[in-house]
Amino acid sequence: MPEAAVPPIGRLAVVGLGLIGSSIARAARRYGLAREIVAVDADEAVRERVRELAIADHVTGDAAEGARDTDVVVLCVPVGAMGAVAEAMAPRLKPGAVISDVGSVKGSVVAAIQPHLPEGVALVPGHPIAGTEYSGPDAGFSTLFAGRWCILTPPEGTPEDAVLRVRGLWEGMGALVETMSPEHHDRVLAITSHVPHLIAYNIVGTAADLEAVTQSEVIKFSASGFRDFTRIAASDPTMWRDIFLNNRDAVLEMLGRFNEDLAALARAVRWSDGEALHAMFTRTRAIRRSIVALGQDTAAPDFGRPRPAEDGK
Amino acid sequence: MPEAAVPPIGRLAVVGLGLIGSSIARAARRYGLAREIVAVDADEAVRERVRELAIADHVTGDAAEGARDTDVVVLCVPVGAMGAVAEAMAPRLKPGAVISDVGSVKGSVVAAIQPHLPEGVALVPGHPIAGTEYSGPDAGFSTLFAGRWCILTPPEGTPEDAVLRVRGLWEGMGALVETMSPEHHDRVLAITSHVPHLIAYNIVGTAADLEAVTQSEVIKFSASGFRDFTRIAASDPTMWRDIFLNNRDAVLEMLGRFNEDLAALARAVRWSDGEALHAMFTRTRAIRRSIVALGQDTAAPDFGRPRPAEDGK
Repeated sequence: MPEAAVPPIGRLAVVGLGLIGSSIARAARRYGLAREIVAVDADEAVRERVRELAIADHVTGDAAEGARDTDVVVLCVPVGAMGAVAEAMAPRLKPGAVISDVGSVKGSVVAAIQPHLPEGVALVPGHPIAGTEYSGPDAGFSTLFAGRWCILTPPEGTPEDAVLRVRGLWEGMGALVETMSPEHHDRVLAITSHVPHLIAYNIVGTAADLEAVTQSEVIKFSASGFRDFTRIAASDPTMWRDIFLNNRDAVLEMLGRFNEDLAALARAVRWSDGEALHAMFTRTRAIRRSIVALGQDTAAPDFGRPRPAEDGK
Repeated sequence: MPEAAVPPIGRLAVVGLGLIGSSIARAARRYGLAREIVAVDADEAVRERVRELAIADHVTGDAAEGARDTDVVVLCVPVGAMGAVAEAMAPRLKPGAVISDVGSVKGSVVAAIQPHLPEGVALVPGHPIAGTEYSGPDAGFSTLFAGRWCILTPPEGTPEDAVLRVRGLWEGMGALVETMSPEHHDRVLAITSHVPHLIAYNIVGTAADLEAVTQSEVIKFSASGFRDFTRIAASDPTMWRDIFLNNRDAVLEMLGRFNEDLAALARAVRWSDGEALHAMFTRTRAIRRSIVALGQDTAAPDFGRPRPAEDGK
């Protein structure tokens, strides 16, 4: 079946209206990907705000109501909460319904959701590689996923039409879709995301604890490199706690490799091995160029501010 | 003497027309900060390009010619080359002239330049906290320093009018100026810049060496955090080699602290100490907020692409 033939979803339930969930609700409506959008959130303040923003057709705090007659559910809650939400909703879903999610870890999420699936309900886990440092329903926007990757990790034996339905939703929102196993996803993300976040959180903490250098100096002179780390380290604490608790093995494995390499680099600094340092600093440039070439970043050197217009160069 | 009374520089020599040097030449002309601008560069290809760009009044490869009748020299060469350039130029400077530089390390640069200073020539080292990931004369632009900090580290006993002259140049280019000792500068920059760069270079290298995860996967899914590290790790290799060779002690000290903290964080991951992780991830947010509040970054979540216009939120 060609992807273009995927019909819009009837009733779509988005659970957890934070940055990602509220962006999905906005995009699904804007691009006509579902006939009816239900927003499910346990937090009354979030529900109130979602009503004000008018980004869903129905808003409820009741999981049963969210599951009733629903075709596709996308869980956008922290990884640690996936199991409980699936337990509350999955048994109430009709046969043929599909559960998906947007968790940053896949192995543990599959393990948490799968036991609660009734006969005839499929699981197609997903992970959109998109985000900002902001949280909450106000932070979302409908083009968050445009041109970004979304990884799907359907367990073996998942019906093809369930995968196509979720793929269609993401492609409808402008995302590029790739599928892989949950285990491989978790290793890829450990190196491209989880360890970088752990390191960013760590150095911002180290800087905050210095006695010889004041925090005001760290903040003032942050443009020299530190600033990019603080941007990463401003991500949602609960989401990131859950990621590390749920992808422990892959994170510790990649962190071990990072530490070995860092020890070698520190040794080159201590012994003034300029050649080793230069060689190391040269080869990393090629990766940067590939990322810009692939359209996953702009080449413009904004460094925290838009580049000014032509100035007589 | 009030700063507004600082007269423009007569003859300004900029040595090394890379990103920073060519930005100074452009800004000095645009804002009328010198009556005559001499570009000095040892590389014939760079000189040719500077002539084509027409961003200086004279272009020469001859240090003696660059020093003749010059009032202010700004050395914009890699830190490891400062001593040799100062040796070639300083003895030819007239009494009352001032040598400055833009090196990212100050203690070793002062040590490299000071022995070559003749009587009556002052040294006012500087370090603008501004840059992009690009190098070369084409990369510069006249507003690079606008709203950015520049740290001056005049050795004790430097005449006040020499300091004012260099301060006037930077303030004329729109920079905010702060003075401190070379030693303190080197510790501040070790944590805000040098260690962050070392870590960024390191993780990009670690990712490139993985067998289980392909480079193509690392590049595709870089938007999940890794991308910001590659931006930093794309900086000029020669410049950064020199920085690490010249600020070894402060870098190793700060790196030691970073490693201690990282070991504690890794332990929290291994033992599933969610409370410790959450506490750590929460306190780093405050530093980010201060940086945005101070205008050293924008709050807009661009994440490598401009935020789209209003989309029906």
